[in-house]
Amino acid sequence: MRYRHAGQEGFGVLAGNTIHEWRGDMFGECEASGTIIALAEVQPLTPTRPSKVIALWNNFKALGEKLSLAVPEEPLYLLKTPNSYLPHGAPIRAPRCAGKVVYEGELGIVIGKTASGVAEEDALSHVFGYTCANDVTVADILNRDASFAQWVRAKGFDTFCPMGPVVATGLDPAQLRVVTRLNGDVRQDYPISDMRFSVAQLVSLISMDMTLLPGDVILCGTSVGVGSMKPQSHVEVEIAGIGCLANPFAPAGLEQGPAATDINYLEPP
Amino acid sequence: MRYRHAGQEGFGVLAGNTIHEWRGDMFGECEASGTIIALAEVQPLTPTRPSKVIALWNNFKALGEKLSLAVPEEPLYLLKTPNSYLPHGAPIRAPRCAGKVVYEGELGIVIGKTASGVAEEDALSHVFGYTCANDVTVADILNRDASFAQWVRAKGFDTFCPMGPVVATGLDPAQLRVVTRLNGDVRQDYPISDMRFSVAQLVSLISMDMTLLPGDVILCGTSVGVGSMKPQSHVEVEIAGIGCLANPFAPAGLEQGPAATDINYLEPP
Repeated sequence: MRYRHAGQEGFGVLAGNTIHEWRGDMFGECEASGTIIALAEVQPLTPTRPSKVIALWNNFKALGEKLSLAVPEEPLYLLKTPNSYLPHGAPIRAPRCAGKVVYEGELGIVIGKTASGVAEEDALSHVFGYTCANDVTVADILNRDASFAQWVRAKGFDTFCPMGPVVATGLDPAQLRVVTRLNGDVRQDYPISDMRFSVAQLVSLISMDMTLLPGDVILCGTSVGVGSMKPQSHVEVEIAGIGCLANPFAPAGLEQGPAATDINYLEPP
Repeated sequence: MRYRHAGQEGFGVLAGNTIHEWRGDMFGECEASGTIIALAEVQPLTPTRPSKVIALWNNFKALGEKLSLAVPEEPLYLLKTPNSYLPHGAPIRAPRCAGKVVYEGELGIVIGKTASGVAEEDALSHVFGYTCANDVTVADILNRDASFAQWVRAKGFDTFCPMGPVVATGLDPAQLRVVTRLNGDVRQDYPISDMRFSVAQLVSLISMDMTLLPGDVILCGTSVGVGSMKPQSHVEVEIAGIGCLANPFAPAGLEQGPAATDINYLEPP
């Protein structure tokens, strides 16, 4: 996991309630420093510093069938904005505009090795691990212009891409389930095995279009159970084997609009 | 302009055929170093290192009327991928997929000051300057899935966002004209005054959705004259007062696909 501790950014391996600090390049040469830090003493950061976050649409059979969507012939995707990246625990801000704001619990694929034109059978060797994500969306914006679906905008408001709390390695993604809870009630509980395009297919096919870099994240899309958040809602996206990503929505005192100056993850590259 | 010289990234003020080197933060504290470098000795880099590049659709009256598009009630936009950013002079690579690849000459607005919820009358004080851009697109991908317009993907291939050669300051954008030449022939020649949303409106309205950071770029959309490039085409986007952005398309020896390892601007943040 990545974190801020004593004013410095760092990363390390989480074991119970302690972090074993590592130094170097998370995706290259790195080693344990020997320092152990209490989890309670750190502020979580986004699990990587991605150059881009790609988000899939219509990638789960159950949701596609419920909405009577055509079976996609290729992965359909958009980009999340960098200003939307949010760590575990930080508040999702209400946008300035009106409209229903929905959670979408998702699995995030974290790229570990530069991938360009990678064959499906080699794709998983370019994956570093997996994280939890919430693909927050202003639902009302998506289709209100008949000539142009506003995917990037509806999903691109400040703080609309919580990710974390960690990147888990060594998992078989086909065995994972995504559970989303709103104020403690389970609203989504779906298996990754229901994806139209598997992790290996997504990495391979997207790498045919564009170079994926270490730290880049692919959000796999969501399934049934999407719903709206109200001010002071609390949303958790939990994937057994990874962890639980928890963020409040528009907590008291932060109802109105984003405030860039206190969003410390909005650092330019 | 930003450049690489003697293995180092730098920036400075272009005057004729020489660059007066500056040091520090281009958008913050910086000063002239006193060193003067010949333009011929540097390799141009993208004019900034943006955290994001936002691209407008349907923002020119002439093109909207030609295509019988509805008048947009709000700016309609997408994101360009970071792997698409390309400096002046570097080759635009053919994508791995089939399909017509088109140029779109555009004005790029370069943000100079963090902008969140900025009023229209304050918007221009958040603009650092202007650059030329080519919003390269695989036209055939855009609408081939009936349920999901693939804007991000069609415009997101490696090298599909040439920008440069410089950022020009102190301009009145309403006086500018964008001229695009294909193999020396003028194909686009349109005034920025024909925009549906002005520079001040774009910066203000987009800043209501998301925080804009110094170095971020807003591509203003294109107008009439878009056309396809053939292997070994040469495309120039010239805006008097800024300069001429020139890039070859799929030059001999580089026809096939992107090659990430020799794209030096693909550095992660």
